[in-house]
Amino acid sequence: MKAVQYRTVGAAPEVVTVPDPEPGPGQVMLKVTAAGVCHSDIAVMSRPAEQIPFPLPLTLGHEGVGTVAALGDGVSGLSVGDSVAVYGPWGCGTCVKCAEGKENYCLRAKELGIAPPGLGSPGAMAEYMIVDDPRHLVPLGGLDPVQAVPLTDAGLTPYHAIKRSLPKLVPGATAVVIGTGGLGHVAIQLLRAMTAVRVIALDVAEDKLALARAVGAHETVLSDRDAAAKVRELTGGVGAQVVLDFVGAPPTVATAGAAAAIDSDVTIVGLGGGALPVGFGSLPYNTTVTSPYWGSRSELAEVLDLARAGSVEVHVETYTLDEAPLAYERLHHGRINVRAVILPNG
Amino acid sequence: MKAVQYRTVGAAPEVVTVPDPEPGPGQVMLKVTAAGVCHSDIAVMSRPAEQIPFPLPLTLGHEGVGTVAALGDGVSGLSVGDSVAVYGPWGCGTCVKCAEGKENYCLRAKELGIAPPGLGSPGAMAEYMIVDDPRHLVPLGGLDPVQAVPLTDAGLTPYHAIKRSLPKLVPGATAVVIGTGGLGHVAIQLLRAMTAVRVIALDVAEDKLALARAVGAHETVLSDRDAAAKVRELTGGVGAQVVLDFVGAPPTVATAGAAAAIDSDVTIVGLGGGALPVGFGSLPYNTTVTSPYWGSRSELAEVLDLARAGSVEVHVETYTLDEAPLAYERLHHGRINVRAVILPNG
Amino acid sequence: MKAVQYRTVGAAPEVVTVPDPEPGPGQVMLKVTAAGVCHSDIAVMSRPAEQIPFPLPLTLGHEGVGTVAALGDGVSGLSVGDSVAVYGPWGCGTCVKCAEGKENYCLRAKELGIAPPGLGSPGAMAEYMIVDDPRHLVPLGGLDPVQAVPLTDAGLTPYHAIKRSLPKLVPGATAVVIGTGGLGHVAIQLLRAMTAVRVIALDVAEDKLALARAVGAHETVLSDRDAAAKVRELTGGVGAQVVLDFVGAPPTVATAGAAAAIDSDVTIVGLGGGALPVGFGSLPYNTTVTSPYWGSRSELAEVLDLARAGSVEVHVETYTLDEAPLAYERLHHGRINVRAVILPNG
Amino acid sequence: MKAVQYRTVGAAPEVVTVPDPEPGPGQVMLKVTAAGVCHSDIAVMSRPAEQIPFPLPLTLGHEGVGTVAALGDGVSGLSVGDSVAVYGPWGCGTCVKCAEGKENYCLRAKELGIAPPGLGSPGAMAEYMIVDDPRHLVPLGGLDPVQAVPLTDAGLTPYHAIKRSLPKLVPGATAVVIGTGGLGHVAIQLLRAMTAVRVIALDVAEDKLALARAVGAHETVLSDRDAAAKVRELTGGVGAQVVLDFVGAPPTVATAGAAAAIDSDVTIVGLGGGALPVGFGSLPYNTTVTSPYWGSRSELAEVLDLARAGSVEVHVETYTLDEAPLAYERLHHGRINVRAVILPNG
Repeated sequence: MKAVQYRTVGAAPEVVTVPDPEPGPGQVMLKVTAAGVCHSDIAVMSRPAEQIPFPLPLTLGHEGVGTVAALGDGVSGLSVGDSVAVYGPWGCGTCVKCAEGKENYCLRAKELGIAPPGLGSPGAMAEYMIVDDPRHLVPLGGLDPVQAVPLTDAGLTPYHAIKRSLPKLVPGATAVVIGTGGLGHVAIQLLRAMTAVRVIALDVAEDKLALARAVGAHETVLSDRDAAAKVRELTGGVGAQVVLDFVGAPPTVATAGAAAAIDSDVTIVGLGGGALPVGFGSLPYNTTVTSPYWGSRSELAEVLDLARAGSVEVHVETYTLDEAPLAYERLHHGRINVRAVILPNG
Repeated sequence: MKAVQYRTVGAAPEVVTVPDPEPGPGQVMLKVTAAGVCHSDIAVMSRPAEQIPFPLPLTLGHEGVGTVAALGDGVSGLSVGDSVAVYGPWGCGTCVKCAEGKENYCLRAKELGIAPPGLGSPGAMAEYMIVDDPRHLVPLGGLDPVQAVPLTDAGLTPYHAIKRSLPKLVPGATAVVIGTGGLGHVAIQLLRAMTAVRVIALDVAEDKLALARAVGAHETVLSDRDAAAKVRELTGGVGAQVVLDFVGAPPTVATAGAAAAIDSDVTIVGLGGGALPVGFGSLPYNTTVTSPYWGSRSELAEVLDLARAGSVEVHVETYTLDEAPLAYERLHHGRINVRAVILPNG
Repeated sequence: MKAVQYRTVGAAPEVVTVPDPEPGPGQVMLKVTAAGVCHSDIAVMSRPAEQIPFPLPLTLGHEGVGTVAALGDGVSGLSVGDSVAVYGPWGCGTCVKCAEGKENYCLRAKELGIAPPGLGSPGAMAEYMIVDDPRHLVPLGGLDPVQAVPLTDAGLTPYHAIKRSLPKLVPGATAVVIGTGGLGHVAIQLLRAMTAVRVIALDVAEDKLALARAVGAHETVLSDRDAAAKVRELTGGVGAQVVLDFVGAPPTVATAGAAAAIDSDVTIVGLGGGALPVGFGSLPYNTTVTSPYWGSRSELAEVLDLARAGSVEVHVETYTLDEAPLAYERLHHGRINVRAVILPNG
Repeated sequence: MKAVQYRTVGAAPEVVTVPDPEPGPGQVMLKVTAAGVCHSDIAVMSRPAEQIPFPLPLTLGHEGVGTVAALGDGVSGLSVGDSVAVYGPWGCGTCVKCAEGKENYCLRAKELGIAPPGLGSPGAMAEYMIVDDPRHLVPLGGLDPVQAVPLTDAGLTPYHAIKRSLPKLVPGATAVVIGTGGLGHVAIQLLRAMTAVRVIALDVAEDKLALARAVGAHETVLSDRDAAAKVRELTGGVGAQVVLDFVGAPPTVATAGAAAAIDSDVTIVGLGGGALPVGFGSLPYNTTVTSPYWGSRSELAEVLDLARAGSVEVHVETYTLDEAPLAYERLHHGRINVRAVILPNG
């Protein structure tokens, strides 16, 4: 079958032919309908050889949707032909975190060599892919695969970040979303659907702020040195109860901290290399700062439920498998608006 | 191999010889070290044929501990010889509740014909047993199997009941434990280890109350018509913030409701056939009443951690597999103090 | 000044002249802008003398909005002329519940003789009213007093009921609202604004169901013997994760229990005299049932924030103070659609 | 009356005679039984003039216990002679945070010029003190005043820090306490009383570690460069689920971050000037870092309940009011073991 692989450090991903996979006992083989292209792939591929966390070549694609093509021995509860989304942050399934349903925080994945598809295990940018366990599949339930596939990361990651802060997202509260791209523009929609808070979106360009307003932001603010002061002004001096930073660069984390209210949550999702110092007096009292990772299985099910209810929509461009290298190139050069999806069997 | 089975409605359980089992793909076979005898088995065996929720014959034993004897195809992360406890309330592993780690509230178990070992699937009262998935095993981590086996139900069930009420179990609060037998005497120990609340234990006989005090109850009250008034007196008129009823009979649920404070939790664990009516004015404002079932996988891990820390101990009597019918008979006639354990390979 | 009082057991409320009140130290006097008429007043006035929980005569009105007319000694943080809503469930302010901000569950109110305005203390159906402490006032912040006044009970009570269940009101979940009148039609709006759940509304007449759909219910079901079965059908057999019963009569609480899912919340708000029995096997596992009372101060602030954001609107009819007895009569005979408001200075 | 005041920037506190206070409407006057001496006073007094957040002279003492000496107009629910503890972090009583019972996070205190006693308002180091509202008093309920007074800060502050992390303090989890002095040695006792976790204490001197073990730490580790590695070793490589840093200096916050597990809580309580950078990749996934302030009113009541149950004990040295300057001097030079208490009427 054809697959898109990262083969040579520093080179572009390539379309190659690899042997068709076969599901072992307990595994499931999918015919891939759609696979998402993600900035984080580019971040990983830009690293020097010694910082790449998996052996090459690697079939890319950590966002995947497909139909069940074959079941390994002992698999039940699924049928060939079922349409499913792949839950990516695979864990061991048995440690304390996995037992709580938080496989994204599995304590043993690293030690056992378990890696997500496209980030160590063969990913979704191929005609077929192997999923290690049926629990890592969530029924699509009638969703359009192209619409659904970005939700497995670009939807799930902001959903998880928002969910930790729901107790603070009460009516009357303000949420700030920094960065209104792939994840941020979904975050705005999620906040509007799941809460009654006021949403203030920050980004560096007016066209991005226009998109933010189109998907539901109540206010938009240019993300510059004065941004935090403007948030504070818009909130009567109090600041935001929740700040979600999807950029995570040094200036945005500083803005996040400066825009936060007393007893607030700041969540740094973006991989931009910034870090916000937390200590007595460095931030308003009891501002809690964290950097989460992806989301849980039940959260993915909830995100797909939201999409089925029409509450979240991702603007996407589609590409064939052969065009995948082009899609990565365009994304790298900032020419992809929001989100790109590969159709490996399209 | 030998197994203890319930074969004929109304008759006693019997020791029989059945074929040795073999693990299918994804399954695990245990050599059983210890199996617990539980009141609920007797409750089920006392029912008329049409109310027995599984086909006969059935190998009994829903509390089990063993060593891994063989791994089915595709099972990893376990080795032959590992000492493990069996998590009993098996779910489908993929529904929303299972994804949250709450297999005891699986939404699809009934529809898919999934039943716990000893309550539909072949149980632990045999030389060997099959566990359907490695996720249903928790490492014993050095615990004595005889001590550990009752914790899988008589420990896990009260732990789960207590855990829902932890936000109300603050210093200064009072917890009432009704029924200080198998589950209740563990509940008292759990409350003392996990919280700083005052524990008031209720039972119908002075020797049971003496046991309650020995395992940590601060106060004991005879469980009669005046019991709730005495609880109210001991709490300055306020009542108890949490009431755990391990009997669940009509008089005890009435006591539970009458002993509850404003904004309290009443949890009915016992199968005694009682039910507490909840409506405006029937109980103090915002008393929340529920009847939970068993516990979650991560909770079982936590219970075993507590036992390893020496915080909970179950008084047990041991029997060989051949003596299992005798153990059931003695339990039925109230002649077993606290908890009986079968040693199928002992 | 003029006031509407309940003076004679069994008789209608009367408009009388009483001395103008004066604020004592720490108290606040309001010029009342609007006062709400509530079914619960009629329920209390229908009781025999020995069941009336306060001495007569009593100035009615437990929903009130006004402008600050005078401050007692030692009151700061408020100015004459400020527009405020009255938080009704007054507590002692110092017990553990009050310290947590849950004055509606004050442990000492009864013992100290503290009663809400209109339910023991002189209420809002007068030209002026005394509020015992400035903490019982929430700024209106530009809201229309007529729109705002029903929110202090008919808004706050369902808000409080919903808030306890927010962790279960995840995307994909279903909430059932039984009774779509004064409180129920607000509950539907709150659920839509604060969550992404599906809302199923139940009532006994088609015109009420039409209102339910108009304010946001996704589905409506006639509240009869088959209602619970229809809810189950609409939820793929699972049932509702949250059921809010604003009627609370024997048939509705039965429907509530029968419509509930495993691990769900049933909240009985209505004073209809029904009570749902909770015990092992009586309901799906871990269905928690409670009957709350009114709401907390911070919740009232949140409800008013929601109204300011345009997320909740109450349809009201207005009456002068002299027409108040007429309003009660019409309400008693079911001739008031949704909610009546008295304008004591209008 | 006599009072201990900070009068001249850079000078030692002085014992002076000031007019006897009188309670205004809504206020309460206490005859002070005991007042605590706290490191944070020294920190504030060491600052240059422009960084002192209140006008001088100021009567010191933010930990206070006394008996009610006089009630201002309109105060009810208290009697002259009642023994009470003062809740220090006074708020406005009406903002959203105060309504939730979190006066320590009052949004309006600064704007309204509200300051805690001893930190802006006249404090407890005097024969009498004024408390602005009866809600800021918690009944001592028989506790020894000398024992109780440090609990109002040195007890309440760690209690508040622990309470936010209770959901992570499950059996099997590990809590690390950095700094085993005034607050830290109470934290160890609180963790032991309220949870079943393993407690690892870190400090720089062996005698402090001996005290840590004496008050309940399971393990102690010298707080140096290798401390985090040792914590990781003691936890099987996983790290601590909760880290409480009562020093807050640059090296200790670094240790705190390095000792944290995936999905853990790090709480920086100490004023040591350190700050832990939080961003993607800077700490284990989902480590949440915060720096809280003091505690809530209901938490103070809970701390006093713990003391009444014998679960927490503070080792103290007592001084007369005239000796207060000496106590500050000894504390400044590290010659006070744990906690000093002034007896203004002793």
